[in-house]
Parts: sequence; C-alpha cells; structure tokens
Amino acid sequence: MSITANDPKRKTWLDIPGDTDFPIQNIPFGVFLTRDDVITIGTRIGDFAIDLGALHQLGYFEGIPLTDDIFLQDTLNDFISDGKKTWRLVRNRIADIFDANNTKLKDNQDHRNTVLFTLDEIEMQMPVQVGDYTDFYSSKEHATNIGTMFRDPDNALLPNWLHIPVGYHGRSSSIIPSEIPVHRPQGQTKPADSDEPVFGPSQRVDFELEMAFVTTDANHLGEPIPVDEAEDYIFGMVLFNDWSARDIQKWEYVPLGPFLAKNFASSISPWIVTMDALEPFRTASPKPEKELLPYLKYKGEKSFDINLEVFLQPEGGEENSLSKSNFKYLYWNMSQQLAHHTVNGCPVNSGDMMASGTISGSSEDSYGSMLELSWGGKKPIKLKDGSERKFVNDNDTVIMRGFCQNGNSRIGFGEVKSKLLPVYEPKKK
Amino acid sequence: MSITANDPKRKTWLDIPGDTDFPIQNIPFGVFLTRDDVITIGTRIGDFAIDLGALHQLGYFEGIPLTDDIFLQDTLNDFISDGKKTWRLVRNRIADIFDANNTKLKDNQDHRNTVLFTLDEIEMQMPVQVGDYTDFYSSKEHATNIGTMFRDPDNALLPNWLHIPVGYHGRSSSIIPSEIPVHRPQGQTKPADSDEPVFGPSQRVDFELEMAFVTTDANHLGEPIPVDEAEDYIFGMVLFNDWSARDIQKWEYVPLGPFLAKNFASSISPWIVTMDALEPFRTASPKPEKELLPYLKYKGEKSFDINLEVFLQPEGGEENSLSKSNFKYLYWNMSQQLAHHTVNGCPVNSGDMMASGTISGSSEDSYGSMLELSWGGKKPIKLKDGSERKFVNDNDTVIMRGFCQNGNSRIGFGEVKSKLLPVYEPKKK
Repeated sequence: MSITANDPKRKTWLDIPGDTDFPIQNIPFGVFLTRDDVITIGTRIGDFAIDLGALHQLGYFEGIPLTDDIFLQDTLNDFISDGKKTWRLVRNRIADIFDANNTKLKDNQDHRNTVLFTLDEIEMQMPVQVGDYTDFYSSKEHATNIGTMFRDPDNALLPNWLHIPVGYHGRSSSIIPSEIPVHRPQGQTKPADSDEPVFGPSQRVDFELEMAFVTTDANHLGEPIPVDEAEDYIFGMVLFNDWSARDIQKWEYVPLGPFLAKNFASSISPWIVTMDALEPFRTASPKPEKELLPYLKYKGEKSFDINLEVFLQPEGGEENSLSKSNFKYLYWNMSQQLAHHTVNGCPVNSGDMMASGTISGSSEDSYGSMLELSWGGKKPIKLKDGSERKFVNDNDTVIMRGFCQNGNSRIGFGEVKSKLLPVYEPKKK
Repeated sequence: MSITANDPKRKTWLDIPGDTDFPIQNIPFGVFLTRDDVITIGTRIGDFAIDLGALHQLGYFEGIPLTDDIFLQDTLNDFISDGKKTWRLVRNRIADIFDANNTKLKDNQDHRNTVLFTLDEIEMQMPVQVGDYTDFYSSKEHATNIGTMFRDPDNALLPNWLHIPVGYHGRSSSIIPSEIPVHRPQGQTKPADSDEPVFGPSQRVDFELEMAFVTTDANHLGEPIPVDEAEDYIFGMVLFNDWSARDIQKWEYVPLGPFLAKNFASSISPWIVTMDALEPFRTASPKPEKELLPYLKYKGEKSFDINLEVFLQPEGGEENSLSKSNFKYLYWNMSQQLAHHTVNGCPVNSGDMMASGTISGSSEDSYGSMLELSWGGKKPIKLKDGSERKFVNDNDTVIMRGFCQNGNSRIGFGEVKSKLLPVYEPKKK
C-alpha cells in the first residue's frame, strides 16, 4: 500500500503557515482535551487540531476497519495495536479529507465546527500510556564526552560500547508531555571533600536532548525481533528531554545504573510523528567501527535526517540557542536497538517508549546536554541577558525543537518545552 | 478500623488442610481464569479459590462502597486504587462470610456452586498490570558476596551501599505468574580469553530469591512520601524470582546497569498477601551501621519475619532444597525503599511492583542465587540424583516458597514455580 499522504504536491484547503512543522504531509497523532473538556485522539495540520473521534463518528473513515470507539480514548495504545496497515489507511484518508481538491468537509460548516479546533482551545495530553520505557546510550560523541570527563580520555568508550547498543530501563510514570513544569529534585549527593553524603536540592540539574520511538505490540515472551523486521513495529517518534540530576547520578549510579537522577521527570513533545511521514528523510547511520554480531547487521538505510535544537529561556527573558544537533549522528539506529532489546525474548508492547540517549554531534556547539556544553561546569555558557549557566537554574525553561527539511518539504515535531520549578514545597495541612 | 480478619481464633466452615498457607486469616488477592473461561478477581482459603466478582453480584459485599464491576476485571489495579480502608473492609467481610459461625453462604448450595472453585478448575493470571517495576539491592549479605566475587573482598560493598537503598528500574512486560515457563535467553557475552564478544545461549542462567511489594497510587509528580507514611501505600507482597543471565550481565552492565541479563523474565507467586495479613509477623530490620540521612530514619519495626526456601527440580526428578533464607535479613526495609524512590518526586501508582533484590543470609546455605551458592561456579551443587549444578540447566524447574509461622499461626505465599526451557526456536513459516 502506497503512502499517498506523503505526496509532496498535495495542498490542503486549511489556511496554514508556509513554514509549519505540520503540513498536510505530516499528519501526526496525539491526544488532547477539547474546549468541551472531552479527551479525544486527534491530528494536527498547521495550527489546527483535528478531532479524529468526531471525524470517525461523522463517517469520514468509512471503509477502514476501525472499532467505533478507537479514537474516543485517552491514549493511542489501542489504535497503535491495530498495526501499520491501519495507521497508513487512516493517515492517507486524513490527507484526502483535507486535500485542497476535496470539498466534502470543507463545505460542511457544521462538521467543520465539530471537528476543528484552534490550538488555544485544546490542551495536549500524554499520547500513550507508556508500558515500559527504555533509554539507550547510542551517541558515540556523547558516550565519549562522558567517558572523557569521568573516566579516562584515552579509554573514554567502555569495551562493550561498539558492540552493544547499550541501554537501561527507565521510569514510565514520570514521562510527561510538553508544558508540564518539573520541580528541582532533592536527593543524596556526596561532596568531593566529604566521606559522607548530604541531602538537599540537586545543584546540577541538566537536560538531555533525545528522541524516542513508540512501538506497537511486537513479540511474545521468548521471541526475538529480527533487525530487518524491527521497523514494522515502530509507530512513530517524539522529541524527548531526559531530565537528569548529575550530582545525584554520580553518587548513586554504581553498580546498577542511574535511578533517582533520572526518574523525577522526562518530557516529550505531544505529537507522535509517524515513521511513514519520516520516510522521505531516511538516511544512513555512521559506518560501524567494529564488525557487528549478525543480529545487529541490517540492510539499507535505517536512520533519519532530523535537525534538532535546544534553547534555554530564563524567566521573562529571551530564548537562547544552546546547541544544534541531528538524529542521524547516532551510531546505533532504532532497528538495531529494537533487535537488541528483544534478542533475549523480552516482550515489547503497544505504547512502549524507547529513547535514543543524548544526541551529541562532534562539534562543541552540537552537544546535547549542559554537562557537555559547560564541560562539567568548567566552561559556563553565556546567555544574551549577560547571565551564565553551568546547569539549569530554577525557573529556566528548556525547549527542544526538531524538524526534517528537504528543499521546500518540511516535517516537524513542534517542541517539548518545560520549566524547571524550585524544589517542591509540601502544602501545609 | 481493626483487622478482624486476623483473629487467630477464627475458623472457617470450609474443609481446609491444617497446615495450609491460606488459612482464613490470610485472604490474599489474585486474578484467575475460571472453568467457564471467565477472568475474575478472587481470593483463596485452603485449596478453594473464591470468585469475588460472583460474591459481589450476589450481594455479599453490601454496605461496602465498591463499584459494581470492581472484581469483574482482569487486574487488581482499580481495587488497589480504592485504598487501604476498602481493602480492609473487603478482607474483614470475606473472613465473616467464611467464618465457621456464619451459615449464610455455607447453607446456600446454589451460591456455593457459583462462588467456589477447586484449584484444578482455575488458572492463575498476573494479579496486576505492572505500571513500573523497580528492583532494589537491599541484602547486605548478597551485595557483599557479589562484591567479593567480582571486585575486592576487602572493599566488597561500594561506598554508597550503606547510605542508599540502591535500586534500578526493571522491565514490567516480562513479569509473569508462576507456572509460565521461561526460555533460556540468548545474547552477547565476552569469553575471558577473547577481546571480542560472541553470540549464543547464556551459559549461566540463575534465579534470584526475592520478594516484591505492590503499591497503590501514592503521590503526584514532585511529591515525596515520608518514610513513616510509606506503609499506607503498600497493598501486599509476592514471592519474586528475578531470573538472571550472569554471563550476559557481566558484559553489558557497565555503566548503566543490568538490562538483557534480567528482562527476559521475572516470575511471581500469583496470590498477593496483604500487609494486613502479615501484620502479626512484623519484626525489626538489622541495625543501621551508618548514621542515616533523616528521610530514611523510621519509627518502629518495618520488616517482616518471612521464611523463604528455594528448590530445584530436574526434569522428572525430585525437589532439592538449595537454600533457606528470611525476608527479615534485608538491611533496607520497604518503607525506606519507597521513601527513597519518591524523595525526588518520582510518582508511584497502583500496580507498581518493587522487588527486594536477592535475599541472602549470612550462612552459605541461605544464599539466594546459584551464583552465590556455587560461588561463581567454583563449588558445584550436588543434587539427590547425583548430578551437579553450577547454574540452572535446561528443563530444571525452580520453586520458591515462603511463609510466616508463629506457634500454630501460619500465613503463606504458596509458591512461584517455573521451568527453564531450552532456547526459543522460531516456528517455521
């Protein structure tokens, strides 16, 4: 089945900005609360949010095998479980409904009033219930920077790194959508000049520029997914800010990995951009530097050319661009990550989320975390207002944006934007 | 509200064995498939499974604020969300219904036929949908054994261990109930005599004797749970076999912790024994060896005296007792674990599962894993049939049992029993 929704010549009858992240060729999926306080599944074209539950009730998906309530849900999990063929039918149909040459909805003012929302009328929710969340560590530049700072510049990469798409399990319950603020975490840290730990607010709160993919039901317990089939089980991608507390991390992480340093929050962009929409931006991953074991060897191009940028905005101030990176820098791609994750038979379900790890490039202005940008706090970053940052301050807002661009074609992710609040103060009883 | 279900003098009109793990003072909660292929929530007394959905429909829970469908669900998550007061009302009521002095159900043969099942008529399911699963590392003896074997006998415990209830995130999707077999995982390992990893079946499949607790909705993002309130959010406990592949673990675990070495399977006993039922077996934890930070200091006794035993049964052979341990050996208790887990504001929800880590005692016959029992494979374990084990062989069944005993009072967990199958063979297409 062809992905007709991707036709670059297609235009929409909706009035949308020319440079939007969400042209009619994008058609992402998300969940939002409407002006009537109803939660629904929707898509976005330009600055319009579109209620797919209402479109379905009005019969616009006739002929596509969908249950009646598939879009009247508060997560996309069931729709994602329906599989790639259904996602594609629905996305192609949405493109047809809003195509400049189709007058059916365009000319029906009642239907338009029911189906279309402006962005200020809605509130984006978590798009999926995340069953399990895994965070990989797939940027060689990032792993090298961390190894150089904390271990040995001459042996910055650990011996397993070039053989394994290293990853670890994270916390699903603290994954939140863009716009939800995050409190500075408290925890144990050990000052360099002390043998005993102390308790208090983290002094080194950081972001990590990542992307994550969302899976469908992929396998049963015991059953591996071959690397060249992995993409069949990937629904789409989001921007992912893996909030981190570096001082907590340093003290807690041996021998079982990061825990409280990470699980206080991870923020995502709320629109899941489908792999179909990203298809025109497919590109090669870096060439492997070591011979790979057969289960990690793949055919073709499995990465994507996605421009990424991080901004920091102090309270009441301007946005400061801190870093420009690209998803294609990642050494390990999503197909390798999913094949590795399941090679032991670990089951992957609809709504599982797998993040890339910090995406750093090779130049200093492409690093994906404050830890790297300020080189462990040794090179403070100057902001436009004259202030400096080693890490994220209270009331700073961190914004990540991402888009693919190919001539005039642009497919974007919008943004993940979240403010760091001071330490949580319990309400007086 | 008193826990009348715990009255040690209470007897039931059901015909049950004298030494059962499930006297009328236990009343655990679980989910099972009935002879009619219906999934329901139930409890167990002796060798009877009791359909709580049917009991509720017949009006036996009148006066307790419960939604009509609370037990007609395939997980306990919603019931657990109802909170401790409701759990206690229901458990007390069940004790009353089956009390030897109450003839209402006893004398109603129709109702008895609807409500009561023998164990061979049911199939136990996962009792909860596990949102997030955390594994702690709370046995000092286990952490010391591992540190001695893999690092330095003189500095076996890492510097953070006596200050932090060390834990890490695990995989929810591969937590399975007792009786579900597990395939030997494949993966990358690095032979000692090679610089390059190889791929194949793990040669060091191990169990870990653990227990896990199940939480209710405990807090919102940002909000810590004080250590002395933590027990309010713990519903109950199960036996937990944290299957492990030691050779995969050794190669993959730096720097982010165990991943594929653990996430191929974790097996649990299917009946959740409530904290109310365990109340008479409360006991002290070991005395802290270092001054604790205030958020980890608690009042009273927060551990439980639970006898644990692991058995290995070769295909067609007898059970061999490998180890006897006790939950009370754990250095860190559940209240400390939950306070630590949330001190940074990490949200905990109904159905989350938190395991203890391997529970080893101080004597060699109380170690909770093959790795420790065979001391890294150096001291093979003799079985009754004359064979030896360093780790778990294909077609071995691992059984863990646990119970509390106080004079004639016994509250048990039943067992978690799972067979290790050979490597998964993909079906021919």
